[in-house]
Amino acid sequence: MSRKSEDNRPLFLVSNDDGYRARGVHELTRMLSRIGHVVAVCPEDAQSGMSMAITVKRPLRLRPISDYADSEPDVEWYAVDGTPVDCVKLAMYTVVRERRPDMVCSGINHGSNSAINVVYSGTMGAAFEGTACGIPAVGFSLCDHSADADFGPMMPFVEATVMKVLSEGLPEGVCLNLNAPKVTDIVGLRYCRSARGHWTDEYAEMQPPYGLPVYWLTGRFISEEPDAEDTDEWALSHGYISIVPELLDRTAPDI
Amino acid sequence: MSRKSEDNRPLFLVSNDDGYRARGVHELTRMLSRIGHVVAVCPEDAQSGMSMAITVKRPLRLRPISDYADSEPDVEWYAVDGTPVDCVKLAMYTVVRERRPDMVCSGINHGSNSAINVVYSGTMGAAFEGTACGIPAVGFSLCDHSADADFGPMMPFVEATVMKVLSEGLPEGVCLNLNAPKVTDIVGLRYCRSARGHWTDEYAEMQPPYGLPVYWLTGRFISEEPDAEDTDEWALSHGYISIVPELLDRTAPDI
Repeated sequence: MSRKSEDNRPLFLVSNDDGYRARGVHELTRMLSRIGHVVAVCPEDAQSGMSMAITVKRPLRLRPISDYADSEPDVEWYAVDGTPVDCVKLAMYTVVRERRPDMVCSGINHGSNSAINVVYSGTMGAAFEGTACGIPAVGFSLCDHSADADFGPMMPFVEATVMKVLSEGLPEGVCLNLNAPKVTDIVGLRYCRSARGHWTDEYAEMQPPYGLPVYWLTGRFISEEPDAEDTDEWALSHGYISIVPELLDRTAPDI
Repeated sequence: MSRKSEDNRPLFLVSNDDGYRARGVHELTRMLSRIGHVVAVCPEDAQSGMSMAITVKRPLRLRPISDYADSEPDVEWYAVDGTPVDCVKLAMYTVVRERRPDMVCSGINHGSNSAINVVYSGTMGAAFEGTACGIPAVGFSLCDHSADADFGPMMPFVEATVMKVLSEGLPEGVCLNLNAPKVTDIVGLRYCRSARGHWTDEYAEMQPPYGLPVYWLTGRFISEEPDAEDTDEWALSHGYISIVPELLDRTAPDI
């Protein structure tokens, strides 16, 4: 980073939980590289549902990626064989050690991180870790799991959110959780709270070739307040982008 | 559970992040089995730092454990090849499906989960998952990483906390994070907030037999407010047990 850090353009540290090859993170890095310098440090492979997990039982490998030297010449790419939080921590210790990022951007996730999903989300794990480092951080998600999801409609809102956070910062200990609906005509953007709801947490029970049966997580999300207009679920189901400000510190007040 | 659930003794679902063989969880199950029925569903091996991670890329195996049939005849033991949150989710779908637990107890962790450690903690991950299921939940930790840590001094406080939560319940969406200091004479118990602080997040850099260097997470916790008497870090450093009520919903108010 030493050569590039001599000017005044902002530095973005980017991570995600779908791995460095995912379409969503490249949509993000391409957009951010028009605004500033971008260092992307992403998992080697998919790390969905990894929350804020960290790797403590084994060492991590940081691997420079040259695959995108032609398509994204202004982005430095690295892969880590760990979790999204590992990526942020190890990046801070190594590739952005000499220059503190101005912002941590995570995603764009293929799939929703609204409502209770935020607590399991690796995408938001990386954003929360940015907050833990004292850096303004935003996690971006699109409510579409498909590998070839269309990120186009949300990109103007992603860029506007990045510009706003760059110029205004965020309150200490707070990051943003932005989710976009799977629609082509986005109505607008709403600041929200997380909707109350739960997963049915069903499991597909399967009999493997040998041994005990195994259980594969499935289930459906049930909103417990579908009509509450101040929630992210309401916003998303009405064509809005939702932004929920999220606290790193979970201490319950006044208990 | 069908046979045992015919009486009115409370049902405890127990998990942890150190794995089913760890001393701490057996201290907990032995104590709880004097109060009620205990079903323990723990990871096969250590899952420290797994936060609220869930396993989505492969199925899980639930294995009945008979190792403790003699030493803990009143406890049903199972192991899951997944994370602490996986254990709670899969238990709810299988072994406690017919009778909803009255309480989820996680731990007792070998090591601190005070301050920011709570967000990375697998022990607290299981407790938060209990909260997500609408069940009163407490995570218990001792600030001593050693395998043969002495849980004796904290056990009266663990039991008192369990009895209080059983009788009074907890506010919706809140679980408790109890940490005990590594001392023989515990002064008392204090309700606290999480101390602000951070990990230095240093890495031990090592050169493996082949390939790129690797990085193993290390570092020290730095309290940013060691003199704040309302924090868990202050309580623990002054010989108290700390209890922090923690919110599952991370929405920042009034942003």
